[in-house]
Amino acid sequence: MKLLKNAAGRMVPDEVNGEKQIPFKGVNKHKPQGCKAKPPVRSCIDYPEDGNKLVSSLKEALIKAGLRDGMTISTHHHLRNGDILTNMLFDIIHEMGVKNIRWFPSASFPCHEHLIPYLEDGTISHIEGSMNGPLGRFTTQGKMKGVGVLRSHGGRYAAIQDGEVHIDIAVIAAPTSDPFGNSNGVDGKSASGLIGFALGDSEYADSVIVVTDNLVPFPCVPWQIQGNNVDYVVQIDSLGDASKIVSGTTEVTKSPDRLLIAEYVAEFIDEAGIMKDGFSFQAGAGGTNLAFVLYLKERMKAKGVKARFVRGGSTKYLVQLLEEGLTDYILDGQTFDLEGVRSMRENPGHVNTSPFTSYNFHGKGNFASIIDTAVLGATEVDVSFNANVVTHSDGYLLHGIGGWQNCLYSKCTILAIPSFRDRIPVIVDEVTTLCGPGELIDVIITERGIAINPKRADLLKAVENSSLPIKSIEQIRDEVFEICGGAPDKPKVDHNKVVAVVKWVDGTVLDSVFQVID
Amino acid sequence: MKLLKNAAGRMVPDEVNGEKQIPFKGVNKHKPQGCKAKPPVRSCIDYPEDGNKLVSSLKEALIKAGLRDGMTISTHHHLRNGDILTNMLFDIIHEMGVKNIRWFPSASFPCHEHLIPYLEDGTISHIEGSMNGPLGRFTTQGKMKGVGVLRSHGGRYAAIQDGEVHIDIAVIAAPTSDPFGNSNGVDGKSASGLIGFALGDSEYADSVIVVTDNLVPFPCVPWQIQGNNVDYVVQIDSLGDASKIVSGTTEVTKSPDRLLIAEYVAEFIDEAGIMKDGFSFQAGAGGTNLAFVLYLKERMKAKGVKARFVRGGSTKYLVQLLEEGLTDYILDGQTFDLEGVRSMRENPGHVNTSPFTSYNFHGKGNFASIIDTAVLGATEVDVSFNANVVTHSDGYLLHGIGGWQNCLYSKCTILAIPSFRDRIPVIVDEVTTLCGPGELIDVIITERGIAINPKRADLLKAVENSSLPIKSIEQIRDEVFEICGGAPDKPKVDHNKVVAVVKWVDGTVLDSVFQVID
Repeated sequence: MKLLKNAAGRMVPDEVNGEKQIPFKGVNKHKPQGCKAKPPVRSCIDYPEDGNKLVSSLKEALIKAGLRDGMTISTHHHLRNGDILTNMLFDIIHEMGVKNIRWFPSASFPCHEHLIPYLEDGTISHIEGSMNGPLGRFTTQGKMKGVGVLRSHGGRYAAIQDGEVHIDIAVIAAPTSDPFGNSNGVDGKSASGLIGFALGDSEYADSVIVVTDNLVPFPCVPWQIQGNNVDYVVQIDSLGDASKIVSGTTEVTKSPDRLLIAEYVAEFIDEAGIMKDGFSFQAGAGGTNLAFVLYLKERMKAKGVKARFVRGGSTKYLVQLLEEGLTDYILDGQTFDLEGVRSMRENPGHVNTSPFTSYNFHGKGNFASIIDTAVLGATEVDVSFNANVVTHSDGYLLHGIGGWQNCLYSKCTILAIPSFRDRIPVIVDEVTTLCGPGELIDVIITERGIAINPKRADLLKAVENSSLPIKSIEQIRDEVFEICGGAPDKPKVDHNKVVAVVKWVDGTVLDSVFQVID
Repeated sequence: MKLLKNAAGRMVPDEVNGEKQIPFKGVNKHKPQGCKAKPPVRSCIDYPEDGNKLVSSLKEALIKAGLRDGMTISTHHHLRNGDILTNMLFDIIHEMGVKNIRWFPSASFPCHEHLIPYLEDGTISHIEGSMNGPLGRFTTQGKMKGVGVLRSHGGRYAAIQDGEVHIDIAVIAAPTSDPFGNSNGVDGKSASGLIGFALGDSEYADSVIVVTDNLVPFPCVPWQIQGNNVDYVVQIDSLGDASKIVSGTTEVTKSPDRLLIAEYVAEFIDEAGIMKDGFSFQAGAGGTNLAFVLYLKERMKAKGVKARFVRGGSTKYLVQLLEEGLTDYILDGQTFDLEGVRSMRENPGHVNTSPFTSYNFHGKGNFASIIDTAVLGATEVDVSFNANVVTHSDGYLLHGIGGWQNCLYSKCTILAIPSFRDRIPVIVDEVTTLCGPGELIDVIITERGIAINPKRADLLKAVENSSLPIKSIEQIRDEVFEICGGAPDKPKVDHNKVVAVVKWVDGTVLDSVFQVID
């Protein structure tokens, strides 16, 4: 493994876990060659004519799927921090004595701390997917055998589609399924909304196992995952802890600073002329994002403006927009609360999307670049508008990329962030880990002011007569450094020990995460 | 090209249009080898960021798609006999001087008689798809340059998926679309219900052109075809003649003989114990099929029985079942009337299906074999229960296979047919063209009596105490021959001149259609 400097000036390995890598070449500079992955053609002869694919246990399904050392196994984060299934899955794999599994989750959560012993004993060789909380700490300390690979939701779909990641066995937690494998996330006691993060896995994995705690007679309608792609169905008592599946943290912030940021965001969208009939926006979860939706809603109502569509992570606040007629559609990639689940189940205007439709950069376009404005967060932003979303300034992996990189392609990407957190500056000279190139980031909105990327002369002009506190990013940085006593300390890392890489949406390597020396 | 005798005893060519063929080996005897087709990986870099894929005309889209001699171009039959687009498409191709196109429609209709000059002048080399009416006559007279290939709906999907048919350009008539290419068939003045026959084409074709006469702002919801698979969108004034798109012939038969057949069908399903809570059935269009639904409905109401799902071709009669609570779902492959279109648009229980979900034999199971009973038609049935659906006894191609072959996999396949038509026996000694092997056909219901396949001892036993007129198939044949003055004349054909082949669901060649000598 050799480290090369990529087009963003970042040192990245030319090889990861034995596979050659392409260093990041710049935004829109790398076009994939070759063809999509080609799964084997199956025959109905090999599947039960009556459509009943039930097997007695997950272990039996894994045996039938030919589980063996070194395989790649995928899971999905629809159950979020309430997920029981993934831990159960690896308990079985461990019990079977199978080793060296590449775990390919769409995201991991703190509940997966349970898997650390399996990372230690070689059951799991490494994780390709977000390494949050305890798994992030474990990885950043250099304890994981292989190198972690972080991808956006769209990048994960593309990696599967392009054959970069071949999944041997996909294990899909389905809140509702029929015996044929048609599955959805909107019904059942473990309802999580949708299960679209498993779409690519269901299409391309060699074997697909659906695990459900709510088996219904054929047909399971709607089928978000198609039984025609499923090999085995397993019924278990419980997929997870329902109270943790749908996050309880989707309440509007009470922090005056965050509320101010949210107000600025709404005002900016209005003043910049983005908020007009038929417009669209994307809002994630998190207290600030939720608050901006409420402020924007008031402005929309006051001016009689209606959105054509909004993109979620849906919450009750987006659902209210839909139900009050302030948007025609919610195009939803992930339901963040129970109101989102209910709305998706009941309202044809609340539409289930997937990383394929919304984020796959290796498709014939995707939804992300059609959106007028996306309001996102970040752990750090630097004076070149580069942003970080996976590590904090201490160098530790703490978050996944999610759809964040993909959303940067919106027509106006806004990062709504506090200028500092716990007296550590968020606006910095250079991000610890580069996740989003500054040229795609248009506006930084903090409680201390708003910085517009100088590339966006149009936006600068649009708000020049507004009362918004427009500043240069350097000015905000200087103020924050003043408050916090200077730039944050650089983490002590071993620059020869890459513990994880951050992929760009096109599959190239954007940055490395290095082992932190405590 | 050499003719070989296949496992059904039929003479089939070892090569069709220059491509090697596998003769039919028997039901469930052939398993595909190899992998699915692998389209090139695309990049968003090559598509408009704002999602607007509109080009000014169909001709421009064809030029951008690189139209040239010898390409395969696909179209779909959602507009049925009201289709204007396909004729317009080939007018343009002809005007551009492009030759030798393989036309790959999901079905053709009498309105496509317009294309005969293009078959004569070499614009179109041959048709792979149903050759109905005038095109069937043209083909059977040996006038088509290449050999026709007839596939079931599921066989067509499999042929695309397996790479047997590589589509260069798919042209999809979309009753509603947005500029990104998300499309559906439920809205717009040319609403046809669904457009699922274009699914495989959209997934695997090199270039996908959506043509619409109802352009809506992004997003077009529901999207039955995903814009992420679409290259170009073209807006035109009219896709077709709306009055002919949704067939006007979906009225219940008034013929006393056909009504008797329909009554027998309903009675058989009831007496055989198939009609019980949670059961399922498939009914096509056609006067007899519609009538049996009405009779069955009366029996269901009388006994308080509810179906779990029914499969269409939907009509107002199936819609009534759904709306009156007599079935949980309609799983619909094709809407046959305006009530079907309305219901699919309004009712979440009226579910859009595709040849992939319902019929693809090269998948991990499909819906067709899950159904309790399918009631179908036929042009001929012989004493071995073999059936024909593409030619009449005169040897002329007149119908496509549609989903008929795929439906034979139901748990109880019933052919509801008159014993003779226009004084020509329908029950014969040997079918003119073999489309469905007798071992998959369970019951023949005619106005003269009901013949149960001796293989189905269970069914024979189930109705032994009923008042149904159970007879042997030979007995019905004898009666019909008596009435009609003997077996129908064999058509005069040139046994060395194959004009078309009939594929089985697994891609092997089941039978040949020979040139008729007038």
